[in-house]
Amino acid sequence: MSYDIPLDEFRQARARLAPYTRHTPLAPWPLLHDDAPSGLRLKLENLQVVGSFKPRGVFNHMRQLDPDRRQRGVVPASAGNHGLAVAYVAHQLAIPATIFLPSIATHDRVARIQHWGAHVIKHGPSYDDAQAAALAHAAEHDLTYVPSFDSAATLAGHGSLGLELLDDLPEMDAVLIAIGGGGLIAGVACVLRKLNPRIRIIGVEPVGAPSMYESVRAGQVITLPTATTIADTLATRAVCERTLYLTRHYVDEIVLVNDSQIASAMRWLWSECNQLVEPSGAAALAAALYGIADLSASLHPVVVICGGNVAADPALKAYDPLREPPS
Amino acid sequence: MSYDIPLDEFRQARARLAPYTRHTPLAPWPLLHDDAPSGLRLKLENLQVVGSFKPRGVFNHMRQLDPDRRQRGVVPASAGNHGLAVAYVAHQLAIPATIFLPSIATHDRVARIQHWGAHVIKHGPSYDDAQAAALAHAAEHDLTYVPSFDSAATLAGHGSLGLELLDDLPEMDAVLIAIGGGGLIAGVACVLRKLNPRIRIIGVEPVGAPSMYESVRAGQVITLPTATTIADTLATRAVCERTLYLTRHYVDEIVLVNDSQIASAMRWLWSECNQLVEPSGAAALAAALYGIADLSASLHPVVVICGGNVAADPALKAYDPLREPPS
Repeated sequence: MSYDIPLDEFRQARARLAPYTRHTPLAPWPLLHDDAPSGLRLKLENLQVVGSFKPRGVFNHMRQLDPDRRQRGVVPASAGNHGLAVAYVAHQLAIPATIFLPSIATHDRVARIQHWGAHVIKHGPSYDDAQAAALAHAAEHDLTYVPSFDSAATLAGHGSLGLELLDDLPEMDAVLIAIGGGGLIAGVACVLRKLNPRIRIIGVEPVGAPSMYESVRAGQVITLPTATTIADTLATRAVCERTLYLTRHYVDEIVLVNDSQIASAMRWLWSECNQLVEPSGAAALAAALYGIADLSASLHPVVVICGGNVAADPALKAYDPLREPPS
Repeated sequence: MSYDIPLDEFRQARARLAPYTRHTPLAPWPLLHDDAPSGLRLKLENLQVVGSFKPRGVFNHMRQLDPDRRQRGVVPASAGNHGLAVAYVAHQLAIPATIFLPSIATHDRVARIQHWGAHVIKHGPSYDDAQAAALAHAAEHDLTYVPSFDSAATLAGHGSLGLELLDDLPEMDAVLIAIGGGGLIAGVACVLRKLNPRIRIIGVEPVGAPSMYESVRAGQVITLPTATTIADTLATRAVCERTLYLTRHYVDEIVLVNDSQIASAMRWLWSECNQLVEPSGAAALAAALYGIADLSASLHPVVVICGGNVAADPALKAYDPLREPPS
């Protein structure tokens, strides 16, 4: 079966979510050092609302639920940026949200989700446990489960990032995008290939979580026994048929980066651009900086910095005793 | 005497420094919460090369030194962003640079300056000591002292930030800018007032270092006995005749923020925009967030986030054991 998404869906998604999300900057600057590929530009999606690309797709998905489904409420499971995105979108659309988190979810993460008025339920030690509980809860109470990436509407929303890139840099000839479940790259690759087939699209996965890489090789969805990487929001054990389909059709290549390269790219991004990001946000950059993706034929390459929700508290807490109490 | 700067100087400065600096983004986004003034936009100058606005002016100043002066070399004194900017510009223009720092300068700061090939000399406990030594060293060796803000060329370079704002948001009707020595606000206010006199220009100083505020009140440069604030790069004991003149002519108002408001604004900027900045970079934002500057009549206010060089190491070091060794 085809999971293809028509161009119109992307355009409609973009119009739908524009009032609630940010057209993030494509950094159009001279880079400081010679250790970056010439002409490299960074799409700073860490500046997106709630710090990652996730609200694009989530908003497009939830905005299309019918009034009855919206009124009843939504249930995602996520230890990371997806849960935060659902909490944000639910708040903006006045939809009740119950977010299932594994018990390992940090206090900081729980607080950020609760800040948007969502109900948080911690269940089980792993993401899989939380997801099973979320699905059962949704069925029992007739609520809508919001998948993290297995949804055409979600992918169409994510594709809006590709449309922004074409607006800001029509001459773009290569783009590097990190892969967790594959939702971002599937949406962006699909829309870019339809509008400009000359753009090379490169996926980047951690060596410890090559779920898309192995699935493309096998020609079917492969479930990894484990997914271990510092880029925790890329640590997906299995992609889905939908993202695999679009990746096979529209992505040119997938490369793998290791954790030490990701950590180095995080530090590079701070020293060159004063951007502090989570490991997943630096994974695609690592592939560009360390020559893992060959960009020698590219004049206008773009790296998507897909998320920024790292724990900044250790850097901020020195100033906390001084903070103004909330009024 | 007049310290006014003709419009052409700003335009020439902008063309001169464009290849070596960044047109930084003006964040055109819906903000997340209701606690910000409506329509607020942020000029993310923390994304400038070397993390602050300083290279704009320094580049314009040093680029105009005659060949003999350039060949002999430059000497600034700075514990902060000015020293880093001189080191960067000197590297780009192949000018020898000797930077005088007070002994309290952090290892991180010294390393970043040395990274650009500059020679670092630590002298004396305070900035004043380092500055005196720098001036003596420049005189003895016939080198060029590069002032931090008392230079028409420097102010013309800083004004390029104002030209970018007009390009990106012609309808801007208010702008908030932090004041240390007053170089940024003097340059930006001068060029904005000439091009659009309807824009309200608001300066922001820390309560503990109101050097411009007191000088404007007194009608002459006042030297504060002390300057104490967490916004260390705004802790200037005295502005200069030049920046005072331009501030008196072109700045509408100066407001004061305290350290706890600055610290709260730093955390707000992280939670809303994933931008980690130094206290000075959040000072103008604090004035907007806490109603210290009255923006109720403004539809399109802009806050300049003027610098981002905070110590991020506490947040990054968790990943350091993993880093790829430099090849």
